[in-house]
Amino acid sequence: MAGRGTPIRIAVIMAGGTGERFWPLSRQNRPKQLLKLADPNRSMLAEALSRISPPVSTDNVFVVTGKTLEPLIQRAGLRLAPQNVLTEPCKRNTTGCLIYAAAVALVRLKADPTDVVMGVLTADHSIPEEDRFRETVAAAFAAAENSDCLVTIGMKPTRPETGYGYIEIAENPVPQAGSDAGVPAFKVMQFREKPNLATAMEFLETNRFLWNSGMFFWRLSSFLKELQRANPEIAARVPQLVEAMEKRDTAAIENIFSELPDKSIDFVLMEHSRNVLVVPGEFRWNDVGAWDALDRTLPCDNRGNVTAGDPVLVDVQNCVVYNDAGAGAMAVACVGVHDLIVVVTRDGVVVLPKNRSQDIRLAVAELKKRGAPQV
Amino acid sequence: MAGRGTPIRIAVIMAGGTGERFWPLSRQNRPKQLLKLADPNRSMLAEALSRISPPVSTDNVFVVTGKTLEPLIQRAGLRLAPQNVLTEPCKRNTTGCLIYAAAVALVRLKADPTDVVMGVLTADHSIPEEDRFRETVAAAFAAAENSDCLVTIGMKPTRPETGYGYIEIAENPVPQAGSDAGVPAFKVMQFREKPNLATAMEFLETNRFLWNSGMFFWRLSSFLKELQRANPEIAARVPQLVEAMEKRDTAAIENIFSELPDKSIDFVLMEHSRNVLVVPGEFRWNDVGAWDALDRTLPCDNRGNVTAGDPVLVDVQNCVVYNDAGAGAMAVACVGVHDLIVVVTRDGVVVLPKNRSQDIRLAVAELKKRGAPQV
Repeated sequence: MAGRGTPIRIAVIMAGGTGERFWPLSRQNRPKQLLKLADPNRSMLAEALSRISPPVSTDNVFVVTGKTLEPLIQRAGLRLAPQNVLTEPCKRNTTGCLIYAAAVALVRLKADPTDVVMGVLTADHSIPEEDRFRETVAAAFAAAENSDCLVTIGMKPTRPETGYGYIEIAENPVPQAGSDAGVPAFKVMQFREKPNLATAMEFLETNRFLWNSGMFFWRLSSFLKELQRANPEIAARVPQLVEAMEKRDTAAIENIFSELPDKSIDFVLMEHSRNVLVVPGEFRWNDVGAWDALDRTLPCDNRGNVTAGDPVLVDVQNCVVYNDAGAGAMAVACVGVHDLIVVVTRDGVVVLPKNRSQDIRLAVAELKKRGAPQV
Repeated sequence: MAGRGTPIRIAVIMAGGTGERFWPLSRQNRPKQLLKLADPNRSMLAEALSRISPPVSTDNVFVVTGKTLEPLIQRAGLRLAPQNVLTEPCKRNTTGCLIYAAAVALVRLKADPTDVVMGVLTADHSIPEEDRFRETVAAAFAAAENSDCLVTIGMKPTRPETGYGYIEIAENPVPQAGSDAGVPAFKVMQFREKPNLATAMEFLETNRFLWNSGMFFWRLSSFLKELQRANPEIAARVPQLVEAMEKRDTAAIENIFSELPDKSIDFVLMEHSRNVLVVPGEFRWNDVGAWDALDRTLPCDNRGNVTAGDPVLVDVQNCVVYNDAGAGAMAVACVGVHDLIVVVTRDGVVVLPKNRSQDIRLAVAELKKRGAPQV
């Protein structure tokens, strides 16, 4: 096919993670993206679907997940056609997820890869300012369409965060790459791993570093071309996968997919490409990665506490105290503590300092080892 | 009656408290003394009964409690005759408790007050070395019988504790006041309120200060005589109470009792008497007053943690993590915390630092105010 017709915009929401870091609320059969963490009325995934459509037509919004979570997502009452839930044969990180989605899009749309523009989004971000988000997304789609580059949204940092990766951008924007609305796009100089605090503070001062949001936009032709340059062996799997899908050869799909590396798209592709643009995002944004994120996404009381389920707090500061056990089922009280996370469900309790919230995985691993029914 | 026959030793165990400081394990209908806090196989009250009998005959062991707790104690399967559970008409602190018990003893034993020697014990002490305890109790009974003084057991302090009252003793023991076993008795110079840390450290250095254990021994004649000297108005209630009890006049009993002050016997009597002896106790002893006491009464792991109910601990030090929810009902995990108390039952959770363990009452008060069913 020739291409360069009207671009078809599609959105791919990555929703494969199990969210162990929200234990005891998240479980193998109750993943983070189906929890109402940022908005008490709808799940993280429902929020993600709502804010991307518009601008992307519902028909062209895909959610990629795994076999365990697929039935849960189907039953979650989302505004999502059943066939738009894509089920990966196994877990192959974001590289597998995006290659799988690209192959499905090529098969289903029967369009030239040049004409399919894919936006990659996640299901675990809190973005309360949806209008500003949509403006940025429109600019990122436009940049992808105007440039043949890989495009990412880089968030303007608001604090010297050490938990995110950073992107160094060129000093001046690329002319005409952004949208009509005047949102600029910059060339990416380099991706930087999670920094230490001193480095993060330097990054913040320069005004040249943005947070890596994990949101990407590209023509499928650009994606395939850059992948071919960065990693030809992986790129070779894409036409194989497309062919197997066209033949509905499930065994072949599984074989080809399982040979993909279990590595992130940042590592496999983004960090190696010289054709990456970034559109700065200036909407409020939080990666709801673990319990400590809640004090940036939910309202705090005047002592900095975020609570749910009406716990009793006596002389408590800067804590997350989350009682999910349901009306009156558990009385939860904290006295004289600060910077602590306390989460209570009907069958699980975790207590840990905010700055250790990533380490909840260690506790979940131990519970799994013990065969506890609560994981 | 003339008196100075063979002394009759009786024991009075004060068990009126509701133990709010062990919430959420303790409740209005599950008081501290019926919890298995120090010994996993028997309640605090069962321990108290076991260690006092012998030396005191079971028939002469009385437990004093209130109307709410009386049926719970009767049903607790204790080695205790039903009529030996004494029910105070209302709460009048330790003064009311001991006056009530003294009056009952005078009515039931029909003996001269000189011949009745009452030992006062509590239901919330952990005393693992029962034999050494019994030696000391024998010495305290002997001192009360040989001296006509009020006698208390003073614990040899092992740390500069700021949570207990102290007793300053004379330099040399009183000749022949103690038992045949050679346990000495000392004259009390003064009672001292809970000290600050600097004062507690001074006390510890002098070797002249003992912890006030709240255990007392006296002939009823000595008790009545010293009470008459210290507070004639209160002392006058005793014969009134005896008379009302002999007539089984419940209304009169309630009237007389309710006029007693809601004050401790230390405040009303001990601190005013010049005839107080103390027998030093050198057995291991802990006032199981609040959750932080458990790390002195229960075995610690090699990181100083006391646990129950098999919680998951990751990088946790010097904590009390008590999961009482029953086998497998609640998965409890702590990560990266220290010096914290975490208690979980099927319907309640509390988190507080060890050094705030007294303040659990503030949380319980708030729960009561809210009408929470868990208090």
